[in-house]
Amino acid sequence: MSDLKERAQALDTADALAPCRELFTLDDTVYLDGNSLGALPRHVPDRMRDVLTRQWGELRIRSWDESGWWTAPERIGDRIAPLVGAAPGRIVVGDSTSVNVFKAVVAASRLAPGDRDEIVLDATTFPSDGYIAESAARMTGHRLVVADPSDVPAALGPRTALVLLNHVDYRTGRLQDLPGLTAAAHAAGALAVWDLCHSAGALPVGLDTHGVDLAVGCTYKYLNGGPGSPAFLYVAERHQAAFDSPLPGWTSHADPFAMDLGYTPAEGSVRGRVGTPDILSMLALEASLDVWDGVTMEAVRAKSLALTDFFLECVEAYVPEGRVTSVTPAAHAERGSQVSLRCEGAAEVMGALIARGVVGDLRRPDILRFGFTPLYVGFADAERAARVLAEVLGA
Amino acid sequence: MSDLKERAQALDTADALAPCRELFTLDDTVYLDGNSLGALPRHVPDRMRDVLTRQWGELRIRSWDESGWWTAPERIGDRIAPLVGAAPGRIVVGDSTSVNVFKAVVAASRLAPGDRDEIVLDATTFPSDGYIAESAARMTGHRLVVADPSDVPAALGPRTALVLLNHVDYRTGRLQDLPGLTAAAHAAGALAVWDLCHSAGALPVGLDTHGVDLAVGCTYKYLNGGPGSPAFLYVAERHQAAFDSPLPGWTSHADPFAMDLGYTPAEGSVRGRVGTPDILSMLALEASLDVWDGVTMEAVRAKSLALTDFFLECVEAYVPEGRVTSVTPAAHAERGSQVSLRCEGAAEVMGALIARGVVGDLRRPDILRFGFTPLYVGFADAERAARVLAEVLGA
Repeated sequence: MSDLKERAQALDTADALAPCRELFTLDDTVYLDGNSLGALPRHVPDRMRDVLTRQWGELRIRSWDESGWWTAPERIGDRIAPLVGAAPGRIVVGDSTSVNVFKAVVAASRLAPGDRDEIVLDATTFPSDGYIAESAARMTGHRLVVADPSDVPAALGPRTALVLLNHVDYRTGRLQDLPGLTAAAHAAGALAVWDLCHSAGALPVGLDTHGVDLAVGCTYKYLNGGPGSPAFLYVAERHQAAFDSPLPGWTSHADPFAMDLGYTPAEGSVRGRVGTPDILSMLALEASLDVWDGVTMEAVRAKSLALTDFFLECVEAYVPEGRVTSVTPAAHAERGSQVSLRCEGAAEVMGALIARGVVGDLRRPDILRFGFTPLYVGFADAERAARVLAEVLGA
Repeated sequence: MSDLKERAQALDTADALAPCRELFTLDDTVYLDGNSLGALPRHVPDRMRDVLTRQWGELRIRSWDESGWWTAPERIGDRIAPLVGAAPGRIVVGDSTSVNVFKAVVAASRLAPGDRDEIVLDATTFPSDGYIAESAARMTGHRLVVADPSDVPAALGPRTALVLLNHVDYRTGRLQDLPGLTAAAHAAGALAVWDLCHSAGALPVGLDTHGVDLAVGCTYKYLNGGPGSPAFLYVAERHQAAFDSPLPGWTSHADPFAMDLGYTPAEGSVRGRVGTPDILSMLALEASLDVWDGVTMEAVRAKSLALTDFFLECVEAYVPEGRVTSVTPAAHAERGSQVSLRCEGAAEVMGALIARGVVGDLRRPDILRFGFTPLYVGFADAERAARVLAEVLGA
């Protein structure tokens, strides 16, 4: 057995999170695409059978009360809250990430002083946030200023209403300085809105501690909520009373069943709701969150960094010099929970990896992306992925 | 056996749609709340087990292609299309009704000539549409003009950009004149946007035939898609090229995986998409739609009118004079697929009905609402509901 194989075995044996893998449905695939779609927690199908056959099939309409459907968005928000460093009552679940970006950007533009007419947008953003921010800016009369995160402090000024930033760059895996950039925005009198799609469930976020104003995030990546599971919206406690949603649907009304023609917003996180919640997707997410019981985000982060360090070490050892270049920062403080390798012929290489049981994904034109989900990926997986990559590259 | 019981039995025996009831999970409850949450089609839990265990659990990320997840919004839209009189390629499924109302109202305001600055809003609308229309008007700089549907023709003028109308009044069950009001809007140079929440799956809509411009609808009422299942958006063929969404998420991009920072909208119904589709809710809806195979909306409509006629007849026969008053129009052309009875002490009366196995719902302060879903409600149900109502009212 090679030295790296032995080391992987030892690291897996010592890994306190290793038993979590048993909570998921997995096979002998090395699944490094949990940053795109998290694996299935084993218990979810049985829970969903109950939701379908008993809650919907037997109780039908009564489930809105008796099965807790009505309050699911805020209840599940409170389950996610500790995973991203938020107190209860600050997160609501529902709609897609893009719809929540729209709510957050428009609401932040309304929270900012009225003479500020610029929205600073992360140049490395997942594109959907940019499309939505542009639409929001067009509708609110703001001007969009696009800046690389490292240039954001210089882009801030007396006209900045808000900045919209991705916590982890979906392409490179770079972790942005959330505390520092939030503080810089505040120092300039602006609000900081963060997209946590690639950090929620992957590393500590500390929303309350770092004074983030608004945030949105995805639940189907590191939070394993299922394909297209509803996103979440965080509104800092100090902004909740003035939070003014551009999508004031009936379920965010203070008394929805009064059916008033006039809108009176509910208090708290409920105000971020829009229409009738998509219960099936939402309750699958709720069930999925059970896998976090007893897990600390600090342990997840420690294992994530150890995994990505080890993978990079294996890549360096196995893959011929010059065939791949990591675009993921080496510094821990700048790394999310993925490794992105620039590689010639990346599309064909990823196809060959998948055919050999190593599933990552491609970001066109030339990025091989490998996500490390510490609850179910181990060190032997990392070693095998690097080894198969080297084989595919003809080492 | 009473004359009405005998008639109910004969009507059920002659009912060509009666066998459809076996497609649903039902018990001895008379379920007259399918206009709020449709009953569970029996086969859906097994289909969802496959979605969960095989598509998500085993194929994982591959299911976006191999299980057809990616194209589900437009594929399911094409399944709904014939039920509302639309050609393929004009309907896309996703998001809540409220979010789709926002897309439709803003997009219609952009399709209308730029000098038109008024949105005419149905005074009897389900409130969420009103809240969203008000938000849209605030963001687009339009003025909201609230008018009863009967007064809409008089409210139209050279400043009207669009009208937003409910096809069936959720409270009274009144069916509005979609062809006539659409024609009136067009004659005034305005667009007609319809909310089909209480007509889709209940009666023929004829979107294409009547030249409706945009429409939205719900899938968890008469379409039985499951609690909070995704809504749909219709865009007439002639408007698709200029449809300009306020929520241009990445899945509506012409080449989503190019991950361009600039937005280029896709062609056709796909342009109405926003973020990553909520696959679990969406595929439950897709499975549910199987119950429509071989069913014509004309047969549904004929049975619906016969059911509501018969229920009103039974109410008149059983319930003491003056205890309830129907607020649902007697004329077939003005009636949706529900009967709403005004009743003193309606909240207590509905509670007593539900306790005796007759499930309708309450619309505060004084409306007993009974929805008739022709696929699984029969004439004996209608007779029993009226009889139990009479008992509760002390006849």
